[in-house]
Amino acid sequence: MKMPDAHENVPVEEMDSSLGLSLSVDGPSNIDSRELGISKDPLLFIQLNELLGWPQALEWRETGRWMLFEEKLEVGAGRWSAPHVPTLTLPSLQKLRSLLAKGLVLLDCPAQSLLELVEQVIQAESLSPELRGQLQALLLQRPQHHIQTRGICWGSAHPKKASHDENIPLKEQGQNSLRQKLPPGAEAAAVLAGELGFLAQPVGAFVRLRDPVVLGPLTEVPIPSRFFCLLLGPPAPRRGYHEMGRAAAVLLSDPQFQWSVRRARNLHDLLAALDTFLEGVTVLPPGRWDSTARIPPPKCLPSQHKRLPSQMQEVEGLSRARRARTEDRDSHEPHKPTLELQRTGRLFGGLVQDVRRKAPWYPSDFLDALHPQCFSAVLYIYLATVTNAITFGGLLGDATEGAQGVLESFLGTAVAGAAFCLMAGQPLTILSSTGPVLVFERLLFSFSRDYSLDYLPFRLWVGIWVATFCLVLVATEASVLVRYFTRFTEEGFCALISLIFIYDALGKMLNLTRAYPILRPGSPAYGCFCQYPVPGGNESQWTRTKPKDKNDLLTMDLGLVNASLLSPPECTRQGGYPRGPGCHTVPDIAFFSLLLFLTSFLFAMALKHVRTSRFFPSVVRKVLSDFSSVLAILLGCSLDAFLGLATPKLLVPREFKPTLPGRGWLVSPFGTNPWWLTVAATLPALLLSILIFMDQQITAVILNRKEYRLRKGAGFHLDLFCVAVLMLLTSVLGLPWYVSATVISLAHMDSLRRESRDCAPGEAPSFLGIREQRLTGLVVFILTGMSIFLAPVLKFIPMPVLYGIFLYMGVTALSSIQFMKRVQLLLMPAKHQPDLLLLRHVPLSRVHLFTAIQLACLGLLWIIKSTPAAIIFPLMLLGLVGVRKALEWVFSPQELLWLDELMPEEERNIPEKGLEPEHPFSGSDSEDSELMYQPKVPEINISVN
Amino acid sequence: MKMPDAHENVPVEEMDSSLGLSLSVDGPSNIDSRELGISKDPLLFIQLNELLGWPQALEWRETGRWMLFEEKLEVGAGRWSAPHVPTLTLPSLQKLRSLLAKGLVLLDCPAQSLLELVEQVIQAESLSPELRGQLQALLLQRPQHHIQTRGICWGSAHPKKASHDENIPLKEQGQNSLRQKLPPGAEAAAVLAGELGFLAQPVGAFVRLRDPVVLGPLTEVPIPSRFFCLLLGPPAPRRGYHEMGRAAAVLLSDPQFQWSVRRARNLHDLLAALDTFLEGVTVLPPGRWDSTARIPPPKCLPSQHKRLPSQMQEVEGLSRARRARTEDRDSHEPHKPTLELQRTGRLFGGLVQDVRRKAPWYPSDFLDALHPQCFSAVLYIYLATVTNAITFGGLLGDATEGAQGVLESFLGTAVAGAAFCLMAGQPLTILSSTGPVLVFERLLFSFSRDYSLDYLPFRLWVGIWVATFCLVLVATEASVLVRYFTRFTEEGFCALISLIFIYDALGKMLNLTRAYPILRPGSPAYGCFCQYPVPGGNESQWTRTKPKDKNDLLTMDLGLVNASLLSPPECTRQGGYPRGPGCHTVPDIAFFSLLLFLTSFLFAMALKHVRTSRFFPSVVRKVLSDFSSVLAILLGCSLDAFLGLATPKLLVPREFKPTLPGRGWLVSPFGTNPWWLTVAATLPALLLSILIFMDQQITAVILNRKEYRLRKGAGFHLDLFCVAVLMLLTSVLGLPWYVSATVISLAHMDSLRRESRDCAPGEAPSFLGIREQRLTGLVVFILTGMSIFLAPVLKFIPMPVLYGIFLYMGVTALSSIQFMKRVQLLLMPAKHQPDLLLLRHVPLSRVHLFTAIQLACLGLLWIIKSTPAAIIFPLMLLGLVGVRKALEWVFSPQELLWLDELMPEEERNIPEKGLEPEHPFSGSDSEDSELMYQPKVPEINISVN
Repeated sequence: MKMPDAHENVPVEEMDSSLGLSLSVDGPSNIDSRELGISKDPLLFIQLNELLGWPQALEWRETGRWMLFEEKLEVGAGRWSAPHVPTLTLPSLQKLRSLLAKGLVLLDCPAQSLLELVEQVIQAESLSPELRGQLQALLLQRPQHHIQTRGICWGSAHPKKASHDENIPLKEQGQNSLRQKLPPGAEAAAVLAGELGFLAQPVGAFVRLRDPVVLGPLTEVPIPSRFFCLLLGPPAPRRGYHEMGRAAAVLLSDPQFQWSVRRARNLHDLLAALDTFLEGVTVLPPGRWDSTARIPPPKCLPSQHKRLPSQMQEVEGLSRARRARTEDRDSHEPHKPTLELQRTGRLFGGLVQDVRRKAPWYPSDFLDALHPQCFSAVLYIYLATVTNAITFGGLLGDATEGAQGVLESFLGTAVAGAAFCLMAGQPLTILSSTGPVLVFERLLFSFSRDYSLDYLPFRLWVGIWVATFCLVLVATEASVLVRYFTRFTEEGFCALISLIFIYDALGKMLNLTRAYPILRPGSPAYGCFCQYPVPGGNESQWTRTKPKDKNDLLTMDLGLVNASLLSPPECTRQGGYPRGPGCHTVPDIAFFSLLLFLTSFLFAMALKHVRTSRFFPSVVRKVLSDFSSVLAILLGCSLDAFLGLATPKLLVPREFKPTLPGRGWLVSPFGTNPWWLTVAATLPALLLSILIFMDQQITAVILNRKEYRLRKGAGFHLDLFCVAVLMLLTSVLGLPWYVSATVISLAHMDSLRRESRDCAPGEAPSFLGIREQRLTGLVVFILTGMSIFLAPVLKFIPMPVLYGIFLYMGVTALSSIQFMKRVQLLLMPAKHQPDLLLLRHVPLSRVHLFTAIQLACLGLLWIIKSTPAAIIFPLMLLGLVGVRKALEWVFSPQELLWLDELMPEEERNIPEKGLEPEHPFSGSDSEDSELMYQPKVPEINISVN
Repeated sequence: MKMPDAHENVPVEEMDSSLGLSLSVDGPSNIDSRELGISKDPLLFIQLNELLGWPQALEWRETGRWMLFEEKLEVGAGRWSAPHVPTLTLPSLQKLRSLLAKGLVLLDCPAQSLLELVEQVIQAESLSPELRGQLQALLLQRPQHHIQTRGICWGSAHPKKASHDENIPLKEQGQNSLRQKLPPGAEAAAVLAGELGFLAQPVGAFVRLRDPVVLGPLTEVPIPSRFFCLLLGPPAPRRGYHEMGRAAAVLLSDPQFQWSVRRARNLHDLLAALDTFLEGVTVLPPGRWDSTARIPPPKCLPSQHKRLPSQMQEVEGLSRARRARTEDRDSHEPHKPTLELQRTGRLFGGLVQDVRRKAPWYPSDFLDALHPQCFSAVLYIYLATVTNAITFGGLLGDATEGAQGVLESFLGTAVAGAAFCLMAGQPLTILSSTGPVLVFERLLFSFSRDYSLDYLPFRLWVGIWVATFCLVLVATEASVLVRYFTRFTEEGFCALISLIFIYDALGKMLNLTRAYPILRPGSPAYGCFCQYPVPGGNESQWTRTKPKDKNDLLTMDLGLVNASLLSPPECTRQGGYPRGPGCHTVPDIAFFSLLLFLTSFLFAMALKHVRTSRFFPSVVRKVLSDFSSVLAILLGCSLDAFLGLATPKLLVPREFKPTLPGRGWLVSPFGTNPWWLTVAATLPALLLSILIFMDQQITAVILNRKEYRLRKGAGFHLDLFCVAVLMLLTSVLGLPWYVSATVISLAHMDSLRRESRDCAPGEAPSFLGIREQRLTGLVVFILTGMSIFLAPVLKFIPMPVLYGIFLYMGVTALSSIQFMKRVQLLLMPAKHQPDLLLLRHVPLSRVHLFTAIQLACLGLLWIIKSTPAAIIFPLMLLGLVGVRKALEWVFSPQELLWLDELMPEEERNIPEKGLEPEHPFSGSDSEDSELMYQPKVPEINISVN
C-alpha cells in the first residue's frame, strides 16, 4: 500500500497486450512496446469448420470463430452471434485430451500449402489406402464460409462494398471486413471437426506449422495459418465432435494455452498445457446454471501474468514491465502524482522544477498536434467553450447587474485561455469562469452593493491581493498540500457547488414568474385602455386621487373618459396614456419560460444518455451526447423563435465595448471608493485565494491522474503561477476570473485519447494515452476570441434556456460523485443494493455513518452559505480537510481506505500495521484482488458543461 | 409442433418443484402436488463452517451458505453477499473426490446428537488417541454464525425483532429470520472444513444421518440435519480446504446430486453421483473469464428432468406429470385454448357447452374469494376502474359533445361490469368502454352530426343490430375463428388503437391552445374595460358601428365613455358592459394546460418505471407503479388547484340525471330520425360487430393463455353472448358500450396471483395459479356504482390531465407489443441488437421485411382512418387476417413460427414436413431448446389503464 518512491514517466504497455489481448497499436505514436523490447506473439484467429450433411451431401461449413470471445454462426438467421464467453462441457475436453494423446501431433511441420499439409497428415495416420483417398479429397474440399462484407464494428474505418461473386473465393476472402480487425502479422488456426460414417476409429491430428502459410480457402480470412487441428470420427452421441472441435478452438483462444503450445516441444508439453488449462477453468454447477445461456464478455478480463510460468517472463524480457506493473498494482491511489508534490525546500523551488521539466517538451507540444484527431477535438472543445462562455457570461451579467457580461466572458476566455495554453504546466487544461468563482463573485457583488461600493475598482483590489497571495503560495510550494485533499474534500466541494447551481437555477426561474406574474381568474390585471387627455374632462383623475391598492383601483369609477383600445406603445405614440394594471403585464411568459427551462434541461439530460443507448451507430450517439448542451440551447432558441413571445433574452452589447455603460477597458484603481478599501480588500481576497487554490488544485489533481497515462508530467506550481498572473490581468480589465475547469478539461483530454484502432468482437478498444500538446487549446481560444463578432446572434437566446442548462450542469456534476451513490444506498433495501466492492468490505452501518457525516457537513456549509456570512464559505470548504482528519478517530484506516483514500500520515502508518484484514483468517479478501487492481481505464463519461 | 388433441384442465405442478426448486406451497389452496401423489424431497439448507485462526485462536465460523444459490459472508462488511451462482475450480472438486474416496462414508448413521455423531466419526478414523481427543473437543466447539434477525426479503410476513443476547444460542438461532424462508420439513447439511497444523494426514468424512436431527448450534437455523461433511487436513496452499468445503456444499446444493446422495447405498453410488455432476458442469476458460466475478442468479433455471435418471421418475410417480409437461413443451402456442375452440356443429352448441362447463364451478366462484388477497385486489381494481370510468367518460363527453358523459360512464360501468361478472364465462374479465369502441363512437357521432341525425336514437338502433349480429355469431360458434387471429392481427389491432390514442391526446391538446390563444407581443387582445351606459352619451357606439375586424376595433376612437376597470363578471353584475377583445381571452391557460398535460404524462410514465428501480422496499414500489395513473391524476389536480387557474375542467352534471339535457334514462327509439334509419343502422352495426368481436375475442384469448394456469376453463361463446345482451341494455339506456378490457383484466388477474410465499435468496417466487372467482369483480363494480355520488368531486379534474393519461395509455400499450421491438431493431446497428431468440433463427433482412409489411399495413389503416371512410376501419382490421394469410407466400413456416405464430392450416401442414431447420445438419438449434421452452411465467408488467 506504500506509494512508490519514484514515478516512472514512461508508460508501460500492459502485460496483457503481449498475450494477444490487445490487438494492434496505433501507428507511429505508439513506440512503447518497441522501446521495452517486447516481442509479441501474433494474434490468433481461430475458425471451426464442421463437416455436415452426412451421408448425402457432405460439406465443410464454418460454424464458429474465436479471437477473444466466441462467435457462433446462427444458421437460421445467417449471421454471427454476439460475441460471448465460450462455455464448454468437461467431457468434451476430456475426450479431446484422449484423442490428442492417441492421435498425430506434428510440431513445426514444414508444409507449404494445404495439399502438402493434408498429405503429411494422411500419411501419418494408419488408414487403408482407399480411406486415405476419400479423406484427402474431403479435406481439400472448399469450405463454406459466412463472410460479412459490411463492417461489424459500425463506423469502422473503410467498410468495403459487398460482392456476391462466389466464383473467386480468394477475392471474397479478401473483401472480408473481418480482415480489418486483424492486426498485421495475425495468424490463423483452423479446427476441422465432424462425423464420418465410414470411419471405424477416430482420426485426430494437431499440427503446428513451422512457417505460417495461407491454406487456400480453409479460413474465411486469407491470413497465414499456424495451427491445424483435425478431429474426425464415427458418429457420436450428443454432437460429440462438434463439442470437441469447440473445445479445441477455445483452448487455442486461451492466451496461456496459446503461449505454451507455440513453444511446446512434444506431445507431453501439449498435454501439460491442456492440464494447466483445466486447472484454471471456472466450473458452474449444472443445477444452477443453464449451459445454453450465453455470457456477455466481461468488462475486464483477468490479467494473465499470474498464470504465466516465470520462465516465460524471462524469455519475453518482461521483468521490467512486470516490476512497473506490480508497483502500479500496489498503489491504492493511482491519481496522486508524487514527483511533482515533493517539497524542494527552496523559494519557488517547485516552480523552477516545473519549468525545467516542461521546457524540453515545448517543441513537441506543437509537433504532437499534427494529427487529424486534433481537428475534431478543436471543433468539439470550441463549441463547448463557447457554450460555457455564453452561459457563464449570461449568468455573470445577471448576477452583477451588468457590471460584466457576455462580451467580457468571450474576451476573457480567449485571452486567459490562450495565455494559459501557451504557458501552463498542464496545457490540456481548459480555463473557464467556473461555478465556485461565479458563486463568490455573486456574493462579492451583493456585498459591495449592500455597502454602496464601486464594484469594479473594489474587485480590482481583490484581484491584486489574490494574485499576491497566490504568488506566495507558489513561492512556498503550497501545492504539495494537495495531498491532503482526499475524495472527502473533493466531493464536499463538488457537491456544494452543484447544489448552488441547482438552487440558483430554480431560484432564477421562480424570480421570472414574479417578474411576469400569472394571470389568475380573479386577478385584477385585466383592465387596460388608452386614455386621451380631454380638455375640461377628468383626465387627471388618475393623478389626483391616488388609488391605495389594486382593489381600490378596480372599483374606482372613472367617470367619463375619452378612451380607445390601442396597445400601450401605440397609445403613447398617439399622445394618450395607457391606463389600467393590464397594460404592464405580459401574459403567458411565465409558463412559457418554465416550459423552455424544463425542455432544455430534459432534452440535455436525454441527449446525454443517448451515448449508452442501443440506437444509432456509435458515431451519431457520441455526437448527440457530446453536444447535448449546444443542441439543447438550439432547441430552446428555436422553440422561442417559433412562438415569438417576449421572453427575457440574453443581454448583449451592440458594439465592442464593456457591458457596463461608460467604462473603458481598464478599470480605474479607486473609482468612488475610499482609499482604505484597497487594504480591506485583503479579507475577501484571502477567501477567494483559498477558493481558487482549492478549485485549481483539485482540478489539476484530477487531470494528472495516473490512469490518463500522461507522459510529459504535471506542473502544479507553474499552473498556479499562471492563474495568479491571469487573475491580475482580468481584474485590471474587468473580465471574469478564470481557473481550470474540471469537466471541460476532461472532455478535452477525452477527445485526444489514443486508442487501439481495431477491436476484436467483444473487446473494448484499449486506451493507449493522450495526445499531449498545446495547439488544440490555443486554436480553441483563438476561435473563441473571434466569436466576439457572433455576439449579435446571441441576443436571441432566452434566459430560461440558459437556466435550464445551468440546472443540467448542476445535476450532472452532482450525480457523478461517489457520495451520491452512497446517498442512494440510504434509500435502497440491502437486498437491492448493487454489489459494490465498498459494500463487501465495510459494514453498511459504517458506510451510512460516513455518508451521514458528509451530509451533515454539507448541511452546515449550506446554512453558512445562506446567512449573511456567506462570503466566508471558502474557509468552510477548507474546514472539510480538518473534518476529514478528525474522521481518523471514528473510522479505521481500512474503512477509510475503502470509503475515501488515505492522507499522507496514514499512508506512512499503514505499512507497519499492514493493511491485512483485522479478521483472524488471512487471504479472505484475495478474491477481490483481481477486480480491485484492474488497471483503471479513464472513464470520461461526462458531457461538456 | 402438433397441438395436443385434448387439453387437460388440471394444471400440473412443475417437475422442478419436486426437486426442491420450489420451496413451499401456498397453504390449503395448493392441492395439486398432493393430487398427483408426488412426495417431494425436503429442501436442503447447506452451511459451510470453516476452521479459522490456526494456530492461536481456533474457531469455527460460518463463511458460506447455500439454498439455491451461494451466499458468501463478507467478513469485513459483516453481511451476506448477494446470492450468486456458485463457481468452483476443477482441482478442488478432484481433491474432494479423492478425499471422499479415501475417507469415511457413513450412510444412514443412527446418531441422535452432535456428540454421538462426532464420536462415531472420530472412532472410524485411524488416529492416535490424543489426536482423537483434540479433534473431538474441536468439533464440539460452538461455531460463530452470522445471523440476520431482520427479514432478508423486505416486506416478508413477520419480521422478528433483533436480539443481542448471545448467551442463549438456541434462542438466537430460533430468531433467525432465515427460518421463515425455510419450508416446513426442510433439512440442513453442515460442511466443516479447515486446516489443522497437527494433522499429518487429511481427515475426511461424509455422513448421511438415518433420521435428521438438530445438531445443537452447528447450523445457524435449528432445523434437523441430514448430512454432515468433515474435511480437515494439514495446511494446504491456495486455501485448499476452503475451496474443498465450498465444492462439497455446492455439490450438495445441486438438485441431481442431492437426489442421488439421498438414495446412495455405498461409496460407489456417492462417487458416481459426483462423476455425473462433473459431466454436467459448464466450464469457462480461465483466459476469458475472471473466476472471482460473481454471476447473478439466472432468470430461469435449467429444468432438471432431462438430467434425472429415468428410474427416479418412476420412483417418484412422476410419469404423469412428465407426460403433461412434455405436451406443454411441444406446443409452440401456449395460449390457444383448444377444447373451447372446437366446433360442435350444433346451433348455440358452444354456448351450451360453455354453460355446462362453468356451472359446476359456480359455488366455488364465490367460496374461492375468501382470502385476504382479494381485499387488496378489490381496492386496486376499483381505483383502476374508476380512473378508467372518469377518463373514458370524460373523453366520451368530449367526443359526443355531451350526448354522454362521466355519469353515464359510471352507471354503465357498474351495471354492465357487475352483470358480466355474474354471468360470464371468464369472470376475471373487467369490462370497460375501451379504446376501439370509443374510436368508433367518435366516428359514429361525427357521421350522425354531419347528416343531422338524432344521435342517441340512431345509436340505439345500431346497438340493437349489433346485439343481433353478435347473437348470430354465438349461434354459429364463430368464436372458433379466433384461431385465425395470430399475433400479427393482435398487434396490428393494438398498434392502430394505441396510435389513435396518442394522436387524439395530442390533437386535443392542440385544440386547447386554439380555444385559449397565446398572447403574443403584437397581438391585439390587450384592451378591456367596463363601460356603463350613460344617458345621452354614445353608449350604443359598439352596436351602432360594427367593427369589421380586430384592427378596426383597436384604432376606433371610442370618444367619451363612462368606464371602469372592473373584471368582466363584476362589470356585468353592476350593469355595465365589458368592452374590448381582452375581456374574452383567458391568458396563461394554454401553456399551463400544456404543463399539466406533460406533467401528468411524464409522472405516470416515471411511476410506472419505479417498479424496476432499486429504490424503496418492493411493496412501496409496487404501490407506486400500480397506481401510477391515479397518482398522476391527483398530482395534476393538486397543481391545478394550487394555482387556481381557469383550466377547462371535466363536465359533471350536478344531479343524477343524463348528461344530455332534457332526455330521460330511456332512449326514445325514433326521436327525430326518419323510420328507414332503423334499417340503415345495420351497416354501421355490421362494422361495429366486427370491431366488438375482434376486441372481445382477442382479449379473451390473451386472458385464457395457458401460462396463467386457469383451472376453471374459458367461455368464449358465453362471454360474447353476455356482451351482446349488455350491448342491447346500454344502447337502450344511452350508456357507453362495453367489451372486455385487456390491460385492466390482466391487472385484475395479476392482483390475484397465487405465488409461493417464501423464496430462497436469489430465487424469484414461483407462480402457482390465479384465484378464479366472481366476487372481486362484483364488489369492484358495486363500489363503482356507489361512486356516482363522488361525482361532485370530479369537477375539479382538469381536462389536460385526462389527455395526459390518455397519451400515457397509448404509449404504454404501444410499447408493450413485440412489433415495436422489431421497429426499434430497424434503428439499431446489428452489433448492438439484443440477443433475441428471434434474431438467432431468422435472417435480419427477413425480420425487417416482416416489420416493414406490418408498418405498411398500419400506414394503410391510418390513411383509411383519416379519410371520410374512417368508419369502415373495423373491416380493414379484419383485412389484417387476410394479409397474414397471404404472408404464407412470402415467408417460410419456420420464419412465421418465430415472427408470428402459425394458423390452423399451417399447423396441420407442419408435422409432415417437420419443423427441423432447413439446413443440412440436424440438432444445430438444440442449444436453444431449454431457453425456448421454459415454462412461461405470466409477465404482467403493465400498469392499469
